[in-house]
Amino acid sequence: METTFDFLSKQAKSTPPSLIRAILKAMQDDEIISFAGGMPNPISFPEKELTDSMQRVVKDYGSKVFQYSITAGLPQLREYIAERYNKKYNLDINAENIIITTGSQQAVDLIAKVTIDKGDEVLIEKPGYLGAIQAFSQYQPNFNPVTLENDGINTKELKRVLQKKKIKLGYIVPNFQNPTGVSYSAKKRKELFELVQEHNFLLIEDDPYGELRFEGEALPYAAGGKTTNSILLGSFSKTITPGFRLGYMITKNDKLRLAVNTAKEAADLHSNIFAQYVIWDYLINNDFDAHIQKIRNLYQEQCSAMINAIKEFFPNGIEHTTPQGGMFLWVTLPQGMSSMKLFEEAIKRKVAFVPGDPFYVNERNVNALRLNYTNASPETIKIGIERLGALLKEVC
Amino acid sequence: METTFDFLSKQAKSTPPSLIRAILKAMQDDEIISFAGGMPNPISFPEKELTDSMQRVVKDYGSKVFQYSITAGLPQLREYIAERYNKKYNLDINAENIIITTGSQQAVDLIAKVTIDKGDEVLIEKPGYLGAIQAFSQYQPNFNPVTLENDGINTKELKRVLQKKKIKLGYIVPNFQNPTGVSYSAKKRKELFELVQEHNFLLIEDDPYGELRFEGEALPYAAGGKTTNSILLGSFSKTITPGFRLGYMITKNDKLRLAVNTAKEAADLHSNIFAQYVIWDYLINNDFDAHIQKIRNLYQEQCSAMINAIKEFFPNGIEHTTPQGGMFLWVTLPQGMSSMKLFEEAIKRKVAFVPGDPFYVNERNVNALRLNYTNASPETIKIGIERLGALLKEVC
Repeated sequence: METTFDFLSKQAKSTPPSLIRAILKAMQDDEIISFAGGMPNPISFPEKELTDSMQRVVKDYGSKVFQYSITAGLPQLREYIAERYNKKYNLDINAENIIITTGSQQAVDLIAKVTIDKGDEVLIEKPGYLGAIQAFSQYQPNFNPVTLENDGINTKELKRVLQKKKIKLGYIVPNFQNPTGVSYSAKKRKELFELVQEHNFLLIEDDPYGELRFEGEALPYAAGGKTTNSILLGSFSKTITPGFRLGYMITKNDKLRLAVNTAKEAADLHSNIFAQYVIWDYLINNDFDAHIQKIRNLYQEQCSAMINAIKEFFPNGIEHTTPQGGMFLWVTLPQGMSSMKLFEEAIKRKVAFVPGDPFYVNERNVNALRLNYTNASPETIKIGIERLGALLKEVC
Repeated sequence: METTFDFLSKQAKSTPPSLIRAILKAMQDDEIISFAGGMPNPISFPEKELTDSMQRVVKDYGSKVFQYSITAGLPQLREYIAERYNKKYNLDINAENIIITTGSQQAVDLIAKVTIDKGDEVLIEKPGYLGAIQAFSQYQPNFNPVTLENDGINTKELKRVLQKKKIKLGYIVPNFQNPTGVSYSAKKRKELFELVQEHNFLLIEDDPYGELRFEGEALPYAAGGKTTNSILLGSFSKTITPGFRLGYMITKNDKLRLAVNTAKEAADLHSNIFAQYVIWDYLINNDFDAHIQKIRNLYQEQCSAMINAIKEFFPNGIEHTTPQGGMFLWVTLPQGMSSMKLFEEAIKRKVAFVPGDPFYVNERNVNALRLNYTNASPETIKIGIERLGALLKEVC
């Protein structure tokens, strides 16, 4: 018998399938040079070292690595993370402030779940990370997108929003933002921290790319670790392996952490404990910083190749960001030009990118697009950008 | 600065931390014999074979096992599951009907998320699985608990509920139920299927223990695979390893599966792909059925030891179920006796169980409790039950 009424919840009905999936489907063609994905280069997966760690943790910990475990995550991994952040960012956090999550995506979802009621005011960047927009959307907040500039969010615009609206939760990617590659300046970080304190909202600083800096110097987080209004997110997906799905949430807000822990219990009990042991063993038995330096060097070379090719092949009037790290850059087309329409043409020319639309809450046919440079060689990048440049010269 | 308003969503406020966690905390004493957990015996973890599979999949598939992957899960693992269910239960399902989830707990959570609106009518067993009650509670349904008898749910009571209420979603554990160890008879399964068709509600049959049958014969699922109103859940947690957090959802309901897939994208993008490769490689390169038979033999021995000790040491007037498989049995105390109060005394006597309360939506101080027999030797089981029996003789 067929279902005769619709079983979907309002929440599910309000969450359309990701545009990205449709885009990736359009790309099942080996001849397409894709700058659309967000995949790390396989060089970032220390295959041999991880295989060694797997054997070692089975030998050292036996059935513990295969058994049920606690929701918050492996204590020694949380201690490692706390120490690294304390040292690197001069914070004062401990293992108790950390919950290991099934990718940092899970942290975004669970934080949204335990904080957002329908209609709550939420602050995001414009353009903003589509995985966060997607996760937040499920809980039906009122989105307040604030323009992202080359040195971070427009704080004047933000102040106007904060005066009009009681913002509950804000979400930013402070380093090498997805989709733009933009990083927040020290000035913008300071201003943002002052606004968090003045207007008392929760600020998520999602930082999956922070370790991948290939130019300039690391800056302190805006609010990270300094207040119970702060939540820091991190991930091993871009530095060790995304396949293991391990990220983490750091916050000194005990109530929030307890709520996330309870929600995580209902969501998946705990994250893969074997994977947690392996990552921890890898971290303490290898030179993690040397490994990261290799990734940085590669991405710097790939990013340069893309920017050089853009300068060589794109027509005048097209702007691009110049990331100091991370995986993406952002291209702004002439006013009025739709990157969605350009995408359809580009696929025919065997080159792909992500049109800007999914990074905005309401705007459609935006004149900007995201390019990923981490998963193609400099040579391939040049060919792909040349194809895109030829198309742009025709349509601009 | 301290948080001056409460950031928690209504949903989070309505989800109290699990009672189980408080119980487990009370038990951090090595001298306590615990029948409270729900952990598989480590014999069920094929450590050597899994370690072999790990090395093989890294060798055979290289960076693929560490990279991002698709949300629905590894196609060849889904094919294996489909074939096994088709053969074992005479179903007609394929890989497309399956989504791999981060434990079957995630499937319960995501199904609830995409189907339950506040106030929707949901059917559960009384007593019922607390992980499902917890996951459902987040979405604030109206619970309709129906009495579970020794051969399954009371169908007369169920019919009365179905006449009064428009049930949207039902949840049962057809084999060796958690917490009771009870299995549904063929008659009850047939009746339930008829009611699903007549009243057109979604039925989740959560079956993590089905493979662990040590007595009697496997029965067909109630609705499983026969209608788009059916959702079957399964898990590798009880047969290979819970630490990997891999379960799955099987349904021919395309709309529901798409909604779950979209929600899973926002929840964790996909489940650990390395773990999926390893489980799949293990399954195709080893005699899985022989492995399961070892677990069954052990659990049968442990279950017998517990039942024999109950007969020897418990006073008259105390009832217990006699499971044909799985991990738990259920003890009913004389009317009016609180298992919560008994628990406090039992801890002092160095023996632990889970009081019945968390398996009920509203009832408190219930006169029943859950005993787990899979994680202690027959000798230890005898000593623990003797301790509990001595206490019961004093208070009954």
